[in-house]
Amino acid sequence: MNLRAYLKLRRQMVDGALQRWLPAENEFPPEIHRAMRYSLFAGGKRLRPILALAGAETVGGKAVDALPLACSLEMIHTYSLIHDDLPAMDDDDLRRGQPTSHKVFGEGLAVLAGDALLTEAFYLLTRTDLMTGVSPRRRLRAIRLVARAAGSLGMIGGQAMDILAEGQKIEGHLLEYIHSHKTGALIAASVAAGAIIGGASEREFKTLRSYGEKLGLAFQVIDDLLDIRGEPRKLGKSTGKDRSRGKATYPAFFGITDSRRQAEVLVEEALLHLRLFPGQANPLREIAKYILKRTN
Amino acid sequence: MNLRAYLKLRRQMVDGALQRWLPAENEFPPEIHRAMRYSLFAGGKRLRPILALAGAETVGGKAVDALPLACSLEMIHTYSLIHDDLPAMDDDDLRRGQPTSHKVFGEGLAVLAGDALLTEAFYLLTRTDLMTGVSPRRRLRAIRLVARAAGSLGMIGGQAMDILAEGQKIEGHLLEYIHSHKTGALIAASVAAGAIIGGASEREFKTLRSYGEKLGLAFQVIDDLLDIRGEPRKLGKSTGKDRSRGKATYPAFFGITDSRRQAEVLVEEALLHLRLFPGQANPLREIAKYILKRTN
Repeated sequence: MNLRAYLKLRRQMVDGALQRWLPAENEFPPEIHRAMRYSLFAGGKRLRPILALAGAETVGGKAVDALPLACSLEMIHTYSLIHDDLPAMDDDDLRRGQPTSHKVFGEGLAVLAGDALLTEAFYLLTRTDLMTGVSPRRRLRAIRLVARAAGSLGMIGGQAMDILAEGQKIEGHLLEYIHSHKTGALIAASVAAGAIIGGASEREFKTLRSYGEKLGLAFQVIDDLLDIRGEPRKLGKSTGKDRSRGKATYPAFFGITDSRRQAEVLVEEALLHLRLFPGQANPLREIAKYILKRTN
Repeated sequence: MNLRAYLKLRRQMVDGALQRWLPAENEFPPEIHRAMRYSLFAGGKRLRPILALAGAETVGGKAVDALPLACSLEMIHTYSLIHDDLPAMDDDDLRRGQPTSHKVFGEGLAVLAGDALLTEAFYLLTRTDLMTGVSPRRRLRAIRLVARAAGSLGMIGGQAMDILAEGQKIEGHLLEYIHSHKTGALIAASVAAGAIIGGASEREFKTLRSYGEKLGLAFQVIDDLLDIRGEPRKLGKSTGKDRSRGKATYPAFFGITDSRRQAEVLVEEALLHLRLFPGQANPLREIAKYILKRTN
């Protein structure tokens, strides 16, 4: 498999669906729909959607059935970035190479655009004209999984601790909590909910969720490293901000070499979980290896 | 029926369920769960939950089946108040007689507490151990209805226009758009989604939705009037803010007497819709009349 070509095709599939399913830019009030689309179509990697599609296919389901889920995950991820960039949170001016939402639309509309993307994500997950091949019971379970991962016991919990830990001396277990929640939870839920939509058995579901948890944590550790060593031009955001804000990061705690090694171990562990799926999990394998090589 | 006693009992039923179903205050991270509970238990009227329960009962369903829906509506309403009170939006210091969330917890945590309440609302709606008497298909439809009403084509659309219209000269139809969306949409969805959970026929559903639309608009017109004529002590918030901020309100556009008359007509129209339900709709009738008399 050529990973680059695979990722590109999947990104196009997700982008096309997002274009179709999101309220159009001229829907009233246009200001809010412009703001929603501005951040959603700023050129994200679509990692979470692609993981959801691959999760469904790994257990023998159809990617197309997981497409609404895939889109809703990207909407939730994007809302979290918009709110995270607000002056009251990380106060960032640049995201994916463009001015952040509040810089373009003002803070009030940026808060609302985030709220709207989160809400619209759940609307999309309940549209009866989509996912017709998936039983209502499975769909409810997938929504529940996503909601838990995105909520105060998942992503939001991680973000809250991320803010509260700024400039503080923290313990290693708290650092892992922050990373596995603020980023890991939604990444794990992407694979796991995709598996549910694809018709996974309990064993398959748990295995893929474990894969996602390792992958999600590795992803955030690499993110920390990119904030130190990455190129702002490729990343589309400024670097060195974690350090200047006194953020709780892996490199700050373990050093660069050790953090890199930990990310590698996490990816190895993620790959071990995939032994349950000989052939079908190849995309998930390639994605795990790519996490270590990414430059943006 | 003694409306006061009825409302009190229903409030207790909703408050008890919220206490049970919301993450406990000591769940990690406690800061976010404290912030969520601080705003949720600040003494709201629980109008939306009570309407949802009454909507279910009006069509012959059980209140207990609609209790998760009822709680989720209050969580969505509360999140919208937290975000609405932020400095970037209406910049309010006082809500329900207490300092607003960002005054107590800081802006970052207030944004996150709102996000968490919205997310937790959808989690609650998908819990399989609750609403066992309701088919997954009906539950998906109720969630969809709530998500649409709370999103950019509903409540958030209304809030966006509310901000954008500040200090502007606007047309009457835009004023109605703002009011029917920022407040009306979620109130209408409360009754309508309650009816869905209660097993409504299409005709019953549409009738109750129309009732809710009229009621919701009337509620916001009275809100505008209370901002001019109400007592801050009873309201639990400062008054006169609409005028000082140049808000698009009914009294500013139509005058006080005409606005009051319009609210009365809206309530009369709401009551007309209830003719479809001779006896069972008595709570909805009483609530509609109470809207005109409320002082908080």
